Amino acid sequence: MTTTLIDDIGLLVTNDPQVGELTAELRNAAVVVEDGMIAWIGDSSTAPAADEHINAAGRCVIPGFVDSHSHLVFAGDRTDEFEARMKGERYAAGGIRRTVGLTRAATDEQLLANATALVAEMRAQGTTTVEIKSGYGLTVVDETRALRLARELTEETTFLGAHVVPAEYADRPDDYVALVTGEMLDAVAPYAKWIDVFCETGAFDLDQAREILEAGMAHGLGARMHAGQLGESAAVRLAVELGAASVDHCTFLSDADVDALAGSETVATLLPGVEFSTRQPYPNARRLLDAGARVAIATDCNPGSSFTSSMPFCIAVAVRDLGMSPAEALHSATAGGARALRRDDIGVLRVGARADLVLLDAPSYVHLAYRPGVPLIHRVM
Amino acid sequence: MTTTLIDDIGLLVTNDPQVGELTAELRNAAVVVEDGMIAWIGDSSTAPAADEHINAAGRCVIPGFVDSHSHLVFAGDRTDEFEARMKGERYAAGGIRRTVGLTRAATDEQLLANATALVAEMRAQGTTTVEIKSGYGLTVVDETRALRLARELTEETTFLGAHVVPAEYADRPDDYVALVTGEMLDAVAPYAKWIDVFCETGAFDLDQAREILEAGMAHGLGARMHAGQLGESAAVRLAVELGAASVDHCTFLSDADVDALAGSETVATLLPGVEFSTRQPYPNARRLLDAGARVAIATDCNPGSSFTSSMPFCIAVAVRDLGMSPAEALHSATAGGARALRRDDIGVLRVGARADLVLLDAPSYVHLAYRPGVPLIHRVM
Ligand SMILES: [Zn+2]
Ligand SMILES: [Zn+2]
Repeated sequence: MTTTLIDDIGLLVTNDPQVGELTAELRNAAVVVEDGMIAWIGDSSTAPAADEHINAAGRCVIPGFVDSHSHLVFAGDRTDEFEARMKGERYAAGGIRRTVGLTRAATDEQLLANATALVAEMRAQGTTTVEIKSGYGLTVVDETRALRLARELTEETTFLGAHVVPAEYADRPDDYVALVTGEMLDAVAPYAKWIDVFCETGAFDLDQAREILEAGMAHGLGARMHAGQLGESAAVRLAVELGAASVDHCTFLSDADVDALAGSETVATLLPGVEFSTRQPYPNARRLLDAGARVAIATDCNPGSSFTSSMPFCIAVAVRDLGMSPAEALHSATAGGARALRRDDIGVLRVGARADLVLLDAPSYVHLAYRPGVPLIHRVM
Repeated sequence: MTTTLIDDIGLLVTNDPQVGELTAELRNAAVVVEDGMIAWIGDSSTAPAADEHINAAGRCVIPGFVDSHSHLVFAGDRTDEFEARMKGERYAAGGIRRTVGLTRAATDEQLLANATALVAEMRAQGTTTVEIKSGYGLTVVDETRALRLARELTEETTFLGAHVVPAEYADRPDDYVALVTGEMLDAVAPYAKWIDVFCETGAFDLDQAREILEAGMAHGLGARMHAGQLGESAAVRLAVELGAASVDHCTFLSDADVDALAGSETVATLLPGVEFSTRQPYPNARRLLDAGARVAIATDCNPGSSFTSSMPFCIAVAVRDLGMSPAEALHSATAGGARALRRDDIGVLRVGARADLVLLDAPSYVHLAYRPGVPLIHRVM
């Protein structure tokens, strides 16, 4: 097996609690990679020899970003809706149905090509793990297809049949819930690791959300939830009660929601691209962090509310507008995302973890916020 | 002479008033380039043959960005100052003096290598013309050096000896103004096209600004001004009175300022990277555009208040937070920047203009705002 030494790392972010707090940084470090795993970490001056050698030339090296929330299996875009919103129209979840129509009409090849291009775009921006949701099919056949295609790109696949009630079920939503929790769930389960529900006015209510997540869990899927995007509700506490790995958006939270998150293993996943692209108020990461909640950042990449694929962009916005320090934002975009996927082999650089490394064209990860919009990804391993 | 045909352009932004309003767009267009100039523009189906052929494959093609405001000749960075600011400290112009110290201590080679890397970074993000200011030397020798180096990278060089009063003149600022308008101006004039002054509390006052700009104009330099960054003042109207090509920042403007700009040839250059990176309130582009003022967008790339080099990022922020439509933001970042440099051969795609073209990995320039942070520059010509 070939070994690779990366040395002369000016600043290495390990996120390893054994090394230190939060980003747990090492200076003048080196890493040895063997078979895609980290075999050695330490001071650059004491690094062992290896078959291949990469000199990081003083660059900062970080764990690859873990983007724990995206919707990449779709067709078409919604440029016109974005333009209308920038002229003052409010975001409404109904636009999802447009993408549903275009997605159903697309071929497997078209959907896979589009998703593959987006995953490549993410990788070029430093993302090494991405979660992908279904949710633009909303029939048994189309949801199964979406998850089968997503599974070609990642093992982190999420069944989101409960994204919105499709038009054909508009006047009998409970029948749609029965479909989602019955035949559809049976069909998608082989391709899905997670189940998710959009619990919000205009989508699914609390009782429906509970029914859907419990059905998925009974099929062996882990629970996640979209909640708190458009207003406060009891949905966040429901997610905590059900032991969801993550509750995503968390833009509107009551004190009880913050307390519930802080006292749980459920990650609050913030999606600043959504607020950027919908001109909604930003979530308050500071409040969550100060309360002791676990926080992740993800892109929510989708053609409606957040068409960014850039974790560096989300970090820059998190630092400016969500009240995070650069270290907190980076930690949330790496270890936080890993936690939101209940993974301990990614988002951290320690012996035995996956060697998902990103070399930055910068001496520090602070530059991800200090130099917003600038492509600073030198190399992704 | 070799000719190059670029055809199958899904959407071509010409910015040519002969073609239409504002972005003056053509669909299914083609361009023929000869000797770095545009020789033909028209419908893709009627394009003439050429020696070389590039198929744009339906992409959107725009004029290269004109970044009319940057400070690229410096040494060191100010990561720590950025971090402190994100923890709540206010931006203060005094940090400029730190960069002055580091810049004076650097070699020509170091300064040129840093500036060259930043220009390359800008070009990779679609910028084909950049203005570069001095202002981190503040001695006769160091300002001359900065402009001599800047001239190696662009013809749009600006003498900004009046950036701040250097520490050694802190108790006799008028002596420094005398130096700037006398010996320093004589020394730099062969390397400078423009003269600029930072007219703000903590930098130079109105009388000093007038004296400095008039001295530069008497040496054949065009006038520009930094004003309205930290508060309202009469500086904007002074810039208009003196016929400055541009007054930059314009974050704080009175109604009289807006009226003066609207009734003049002076461009209001907005620098949204500054407000993003200093958490100041954003300028109101809508108010300026509705009044009929000419507007440009630029990065202000510098290690203190705005270390972005990304015009696409500035466009995204301009659309979200400055009240511009995507078309207005793109026009401001291309034709607006050209106007701020009093150039009619760039920022526009018409026969006889420079063939500074950018192919986007998108069907429309709207994606620059719709997909914030995503590197969408396919090719820069
Ligand atoms: Zn989502
Ligand atoms: Zn400036």
